[in-house]
Amino acid sequence: SNPSVLVPASVQQRGISVEALKPSDQFAPRHNSASPAEIKEMASVAGFDSIDALIDATVPQSIRREDRMEMGKYTDGMTESGFLAQFKEMASKNKMYKTFLGMGYYNTYLPPVIQRNILENPGWYTQYTPYQSEIAQGRLESLLNFQTVITELTGMGLSNCSLLDEATAAAEAMTMCSAIARGKKQKWLMSDKCHPQTIEVCRTRAEGLGLDVIVGDEASFKYDSSVFGVLVQQPATDGSIKDYKSLTKEAHDAKVKVCVATDLLALTMMEPPSTWGADIVVGSAQRFGVPMGYGGPHAAFLSCSEEYKRLLPGRIIGISVDSNGKRALRMAMQTREQHIRRDKATSNICTAQALLANIAAMYAIYHGPQGLTKIAQRANGQAHVLAAGAKKLGLDVGSEAFFDTVCINVGDAQGVVDAALQAELNVRKLDDSHITVSFDETTSIADVDVLFKVLNKGSQPDFSAESLASEVEGGVGNFKRSGSFMQQPVFNSFHSEHEMLRYLKRLENRDLSLCHSMIALGSCTMKLNASSEMMPISWPELNGLHPFVPVDQAAGYAEMFEDLAQQLAVITGFDAVSLQPNSGAAGEYAGLMAIRSYHKARGDDHRNVCIIPLSAHGTNPASAIMAGMKIVTVPSDDNGNIDFEAFKQKAEENKENLAAFMVTYPSTHGVYEENVDKICQIIHDNGGQVYMDGANMNAQVGLTAPGIIGADVCHLNLHKTFCIPHGGGGPGMGPIGVRKHLAPYLATHPVIPTGALPGFKSDAEACGTLAAAPFGSSLILPISYAYISMMGSDGLTMASKLAILNANYMAKVLEPHYPVLFKGPNGTCAHEFIMDLRQLEKTSGITPEDVAKRLIDYGFHAPTMSWPVPGTLMVEPTESESKAELDRWCAAMISIRKEIAEIESGKVDRKNNVITNAPHPADEVLSEEWDRPYTREQAAFPAAWVQQAKFWPVTSRVDNVHGDRHLIASLPQDEPCQETEVEAATA
Amino acid sequence: SNPSVLVPASVQQRGISVEALKPSDQFAPRHNSASPAEIKEMASVAGFDSIDALIDATVPQSIRREDRMEMGKYTDGMTESGFLAQFKEMASKNKMYKTFLGMGYYNTYLPPVIQRNILENPGWYTQYTPYQSEIAQGRLESLLNFQTVITELTGMGLSNCSLLDEATAAAEAMTMCSAIARGKKQKWLMSDKCHPQTIEVCRTRAEGLGLDVIVGDEASFKYDSSVFGVLVQQPATDGSIKDYKSLTKEAHDAKVKVCVATDLLALTMMEPPSTWGADIVVGSAQRFGVPMGYGGPHAAFLSCSEEYKRLLPGRIIGISVDSNGKRALRMAMQTREQHIRRDKATSNICTAQALLANIAAMYAIYHGPQGLTKIAQRANGQAHVLAAGAKKLGLDVGSEAFFDTVCINVGDAQGVVDAALQAELNVRKLDDSHITVSFDETTSIADVDVLFKVLNKGSQPDFSAESLASEVEGGVGNFKRSGSFMQQPVFNSFHSEHEMLRYLKRLENRDLSLCHSMIALGSCTMKLNASSEMMPISWPELNGLHPFVPVDQAAGYAEMFEDLAQQLAVITGFDAVSLQPNSGAAGEYAGLMAIRSYHKARGDDHRNVCIIPLSAHGTNPASAIMAGMKIVTVPSDDNGNIDFEAFKQKAEENKENLAAFMVTYPSTHGVYEENVDKICQIIHDNGGQVYMDGANMNAQVGLTAPGIIGADVCHLNLHKTFCIPHGGGGPGMGPIGVRKHLAPYLATHPVIPTGALPGFKSDAEACGTLAAAPFGSSLILPISYAYISMMGSDGLTMASKLAILNANYMAKVLEPHYPVLFKGPNGTCAHEFIMDLRQLEKTSGITPEDVAKRLIDYGFHAPTMSWPVPGTLMVEPTESESKAELDRWCAAMISIRKEIAEIESGKVDRKNNVITNAPHPADEVLSEEWDRPYTREQAAFPAAWVQQAKFWPVTSRVDNVHGDRHLIASLPQDEPCQETEVEAATA
Repeated sequence: SNPSVLVPASVQQRGISVEALKPSDQFAPRHNSASPAEIKEMASVAGFDSIDALIDATVPQSIRREDRMEMGKYTDGMTESGFLAQFKEMASKNKMYKTFLGMGYYNTYLPPVIQRNILENPGWYTQYTPYQSEIAQGRLESLLNFQTVITELTGMGLSNCSLLDEATAAAEAMTMCSAIARGKKQKWLMSDKCHPQTIEVCRTRAEGLGLDVIVGDEASFKYDSSVFGVLVQQPATDGSIKDYKSLTKEAHDAKVKVCVATDLLALTMMEPPSTWGADIVVGSAQRFGVPMGYGGPHAAFLSCSEEYKRLLPGRIIGISVDSNGKRALRMAMQTREQHIRRDKATSNICTAQALLANIAAMYAIYHGPQGLTKIAQRANGQAHVLAAGAKKLGLDVGSEAFFDTVCINVGDAQGVVDAALQAELNVRKLDDSHITVSFDETTSIADVDVLFKVLNKGSQPDFSAESLASEVEGGVGNFKRSGSFMQQPVFNSFHSEHEMLRYLKRLENRDLSLCHSMIALGSCTMKLNASSEMMPISWPELNGLHPFVPVDQAAGYAEMFEDLAQQLAVITGFDAVSLQPNSGAAGEYAGLMAIRSYHKARGDDHRNVCIIPLSAHGTNPASAIMAGMKIVTVPSDDNGNIDFEAFKQKAEENKENLAAFMVTYPSTHGVYEENVDKICQIIHDNGGQVYMDGANMNAQVGLTAPGIIGADVCHLNLHKTFCIPHGGGGPGMGPIGVRKHLAPYLATHPVIPTGALPGFKSDAEACGTLAAAPFGSSLILPISYAYISMMGSDGLTMASKLAILNANYMAKVLEPHYPVLFKGPNGTCAHEFIMDLRQLEKTSGITPEDVAKRLIDYGFHAPTMSWPVPGTLMVEPTESESKAELDRWCAAMISIRKEIAEIESGKVDRKNNVITNAPHPADEVLSEEWDRPYTREQAAFPAAWVQQAKFWPVTSRVDNVHGDRHLIASLPQDEPCQETEVEAATA
Repeated sequence: SNPSVLVPASVQQRGISVEALKPSDQFAPRHNSASPAEIKEMASVAGFDSIDALIDATVPQSIRREDRMEMGKYTDGMTESGFLAQFKEMASKNKMYKTFLGMGYYNTYLPPVIQRNILENPGWYTQYTPYQSEIAQGRLESLLNFQTVITELTGMGLSNCSLLDEATAAAEAMTMCSAIARGKKQKWLMSDKCHPQTIEVCRTRAEGLGLDVIVGDEASFKYDSSVFGVLVQQPATDGSIKDYKSLTKEAHDAKVKVCVATDLLALTMMEPPSTWGADIVVGSAQRFGVPMGYGGPHAAFLSCSEEYKRLLPGRIIGISVDSNGKRALRMAMQTREQHIRRDKATSNICTAQALLANIAAMYAIYHGPQGLTKIAQRANGQAHVLAAGAKKLGLDVGSEAFFDTVCINVGDAQGVVDAALQAELNVRKLDDSHITVSFDETTSIADVDVLFKVLNKGSQPDFSAESLASEVEGGVGNFKRSGSFMQQPVFNSFHSEHEMLRYLKRLENRDLSLCHSMIALGSCTMKLNASSEMMPISWPELNGLHPFVPVDQAAGYAEMFEDLAQQLAVITGFDAVSLQPNSGAAGEYAGLMAIRSYHKARGDDHRNVCIIPLSAHGTNPASAIMAGMKIVTVPSDDNGNIDFEAFKQKAEENKENLAAFMVTYPSTHGVYEENVDKICQIIHDNGGQVYMDGANMNAQVGLTAPGIIGADVCHLNLHKTFCIPHGGGGPGMGPIGVRKHLAPYLATHPVIPTGALPGFKSDAEACGTLAAAPFGSSLILPISYAYISMMGSDGLTMASKLAILNANYMAKVLEPHYPVLFKGPNGTCAHEFIMDLRQLEKTSGITPEDVAKRLIDYGFHAPTMSWPVPGTLMVEPTESESKAELDRWCAAMISIRKEIAEIESGKVDRKNNVITNAPHPADEVLSEEWDRPYTREQAAFPAAWVQQAKFWPVTSRVDNVHGDRHLIASLPQDEPCQETEVEAATA
């Protein structure tokens, strides 16, 4: 990692080389951790003369990329300062008009203390999903707060801890209602006053699932036995608030479930849907402090009554106890997750938006119920003043009751929209004669005056907003909320910045993140998220943009999308890219929907069989089901490869109806299968399309590519291979690359048409709309764009090589202690490898979970457990980890193996030992009664590096079963705040 | 702290109040922690009906401010978003030309990982000076790294861990040399090729100290018995590198000490001054990653041989051991500090620039010796290419040997400077015919081509920089460095961003900061540093500016200085402000120098007596000595007030020669003395000027003011009262406010003239130059500007009231357990109070230090110990601390009192108990052998809140005496890295 190796000091001796005069803040040597000497040493341990010899022996020759990736000005890799300067210029092409567009996106103030200490703090954004609950109590607490905000405001009994966006949450509600009806009914009714993107996402989703969507005026809906659910929006997209009590009664009488898309800020003033009987409530928490970011990422939610808890998609945080009986949090009911349920999953979305949910929860905590209400009342007040003024100007104003959005009949809507644009304002054209204007936390009474001028043909009317205010009554008509909400202490304690800062830091310090040590999760690529990659997301030019502004106001974004799409096309060896899917699972679904549309367009409606290897990611079958496909499974052979003969037979058997084949490469077993190109050929020969799962792309970049291998489509987990941080469980991004013939079928959007990039031409044949925002979570795309632009072609290729080297080095070091499953023909693994612990369970009773928990005592997060093979651990080190860190991790595993040996030898009890009792929190090892058959030091300080920097878990092993049996997924109103137990000193 | 209390929810009931429509992100309720209910409760505990009743009973009526502070557009307090928007606009008036001015300031890349995780991370910037070494091992380690960088590069045996700036460091070297000569010699010789600001600061300093400065060509210097020292600059201000071996020999033969101001980056290529015999080496570490920031803050250094360790000014970090014999760091030789030596101090500057020293050290670690050398070689190479091109153009180029600065005889220097300005470049006009051009880390070979064009009258010459490069030999002539440097593991381990991030986080987690708990330091006002206050310092428009650019390029700064000066003038009740002094101590010195000049200008040269109370801050007498004054001390009476009769007598006795009186208000005893206005009057009656120490300004703002009380000058510790973070021991800022009659005497600057603000008119009568940069540490002034602008008049006044309320509440709660020393006539204290522990030492043997160390086990930093009264603790809670936090702190102290009671009762041993053994690190309480007469839980978990969030000290009590006896103040070359002890897993 020594940057100076690029230019030997000796070049200064005689004559100055131009190379030596170039800027020195090169990025690749900062990202790729190993130094040349270390590379040589590790290659040697792995059994090779050089890293290149290892790569040649590992990546099949037949699929090797021969050229250097050509990415124009990015090919050589920009310096950190150079990249930031050019991107700042690009971003400044976005125009920052004041925006009143609404439609689910509102400007908001992210409190600086939260911006600095969550969004810009690696201690909050680099964590993995909280599967290891003992070292995740901080964000589990925060996500439980989020759930509580949702249940308090919606009045529903249960909420998940976030979904991708409001539109997909509505689609999930549709799926839930269908499942409640056991799939026996067909129709999903949607009010035409839902947001257009919500309608389109449901339509597309229904298409794959074979459901019928009927959009219309909710007043005219008829409920018969074919209808399983109805969705209304409250407040509606035109701002109106309506009485849905009779609709609900009618629907319920017909056993139809009632869903509502709502607005959290409105709910501080408006009666919660629970009061009028809604069954499922969805929405977005964006306006609780999360920047609009040209569409995302934001945290959506889905809440319902506890009755439906097994059908609720997404993660749920619940309160349980640890082995000492102490309160402890963890993800509840994980058996619902798709990697366990596979094709029986009700959703392929367990990807959440944890980081954004945390921001929204902290925003709610910082403001408290009164502060939130005040913000709501301001937006509402401004809306009422506007409405009053519009009436004075002789214009018709839509609804009796509204919250923050005023609908005005202006006659010539386009004329008013254009006049507003002249004043650098964006108002929404609802239809030819109506506009809507939405107010938010950042709008002001001065804005209302500007709007009056726009409505009054450019001249100030004879009244002002201020003069009108006192005449106007605010509120939400007859829909006023009664009773209090968010009375739990956590929402009423941290209203000063200092208290907030300390709360954030206390929670941060309970979580193990990449700031502490490597998180070697097989198939999850937990690489470094560099500071320079993260910086642009704080720029107002990027994070202040509403996704539906006229495209000329988003020229900076457009240029970045073009460049990023071009980069990704080169990297994947494909022709076109869709940036819409906002998670890896959404990418899979998007790819399969494109394949589906392709077959349909060719008249091959019958092609609906999807072949999936047994070893595939659980999201694969779930996605295929969502795309309306039937699944045919092929087994693996003893080497972990696809059973070629069985595969060939299945492909041929299904040739008439073959739609797709889904394959992960290198395989989920961590091996480059030699005949992958042949496999692709066989699929094509039988009329199918090859979908490649991009989870393992970090072993391909620069060395091979899906396009070279023969795939037709591939999604990219930008949060794995391309440096978007995992955020403690989201956000991610899952754009897909495709060959030219699939490009016409990429997703579009009802408000901002899009499709294949770069060089978008037409969305005429698009497969539909897959996410609420046209370009998914646009705000985080710069992270990947920065990574690729700064790494350049050689840096990216070296990253792949190092990822493979690191894995092979570790496998070789650990093999004497743990058998390594699955290898390529030359005895090497790809960028990850599987340690086999099955024998150990027999000899010692120690399970992979025990080892995982014991690793916590050594300061490490566990690798992936028992996937894809039960009884194993899968390890992926990534190129950004240093040799020193790999060595520490191996030393921990070797030390644990010695601890296991003592059990095997009978020296130590099988049930009561340092591993089965792990992890060991501080209060446990300090307790006066210590009757363990090992010392406190053995428990908590098992290695030298731990003595220097100990990461303490705050609970002992968490009891998952207890929590699932007694599900508590929001803070009880009477529960004391876990964080503010202070005795008054005066007591 | 509930923001909603400002607008009752009920205002929405009928008619909308304009107030309710105003933006809600108000700052004051986020800063001032207590809610109205808490305020009422605390006032009641303190014995008053309301906070205002408490204030009326506490602040003497005769000096109360009657009006609301009128600060124009800032009076009402801006919202956070509103402030940032308007300040961004103001800052954008600065012009970001490319700058080649040199003179001790160079552009540099702050590595993003360091920017994010130190400069923008409250976990690094909110700490106090590391007096409590057990909870400061992180930054102590970092500062030791800094010292090692300095000793390695300069070759000297010893370095301090930073000084304020290069010019004052040179002045400190002068003072040291004078002290080495025991004050018996008079003359200080300075090369005329030193930077102009260095020359002027030394001249001013010499004036106060009665020394003679002789500036001239160093070749012509004559060394006789009147000369105590000589200062040269290498490389010189004109870029030249000279052979100083014979100069050194000559000087040494005459027992004259040789000092050199140098450049750290140059030293990576150039022989260190130690090789040719320099005695003292000074310089700035700015270009090691610290933004220029229009002049500061930056970390300067002073290094020398160990022989002079007792005379070395500034803090020194040394290696010692803890009570278990484990390696532990702490500040060495603290007996040198001015609060102990008072008027015998050799310097009033123990204020350091810790945060900037940490950044510079981490920059050196991130690049390592090879990376630093490469950066140096690039700048050097560009300089050589420019020199070669200039020669080709027929121009004379100055020196044979140079590093990064080329001196060119261009004939018409102004013409070339103007032509460069046209191209948006700044080059330096050295004299009428010469310019200099300095290169740095951020300059490029493309810049050289632009410069060629400028030198060639606007047309591109027939050669390019690139074409010249290969013909040109780089280097530093005969002054090439031989041998390696910075070979310690810490400089050769953390070159990848991920390793760097973890190193930063490991060190951060060893330090207790405001992120964890309150730091209630009497007289140090450790208030919250809000995120919105800190954000602007990351803006390139502010941090990218060289301090000596033409003033029209700094229009944004100028506007901010004007506004801030106006704000401070209103707050202090004065007429004019100087923003130059870059620490509190420098402010004192600046104020006294202004008084000195005032007397001189009136012909009162003889006025040189300064009366100082015995209870004064130790910096007061040290500053007075530096200003050439004689000190007369007055004692305190039993109530802690100035002994009025004794005072009056001293004033009258000295009336002929009275120059000044220095007073802290409220007093250092935490009391508003009733007759302070009378005291001021008596000084004036006897011809003196009143200097007010602003350390306790947090108890004055909005309630009274130095100008109201009767003072003539006052310094403001912006890092106390006005929210600049303490940075773990700097930076600070100490601007002074003065009455109109002192305004003409405020400091100016030789490059950028300045003086009294707002509305600077003339520097003709200025007292001299006190800091290297015209406006001190300009980059951090926005922090205070933000605080004042967002708090507004009422917010600031409420802050003072709450600070007083919090102190009185705590004093009342704690008084039953610890006697409270010194109160005003109504039984109240000011914003701080003193707990008397003297009796406890007799009854239990427990000292204030023992209590301080035991507080660590409770998760708290100790208050100020044994100052101003030995055997006491002084507590200042500040307004940003919540009642919950105050209660926790009080509960800890009450619990400790109970622990002491058990010693008093004989139940517990006096030598071996939970207090005398404190603090208790984790490895100690976990050790197998536990023979303490108390439990491990009592040791480490003495309170409920600690169980929820334990801050672990990493060492037990540190042995100060051991470290001073065996001073080790840099990392030995052979010492293994404390941070990278990893066994290779393959071993």
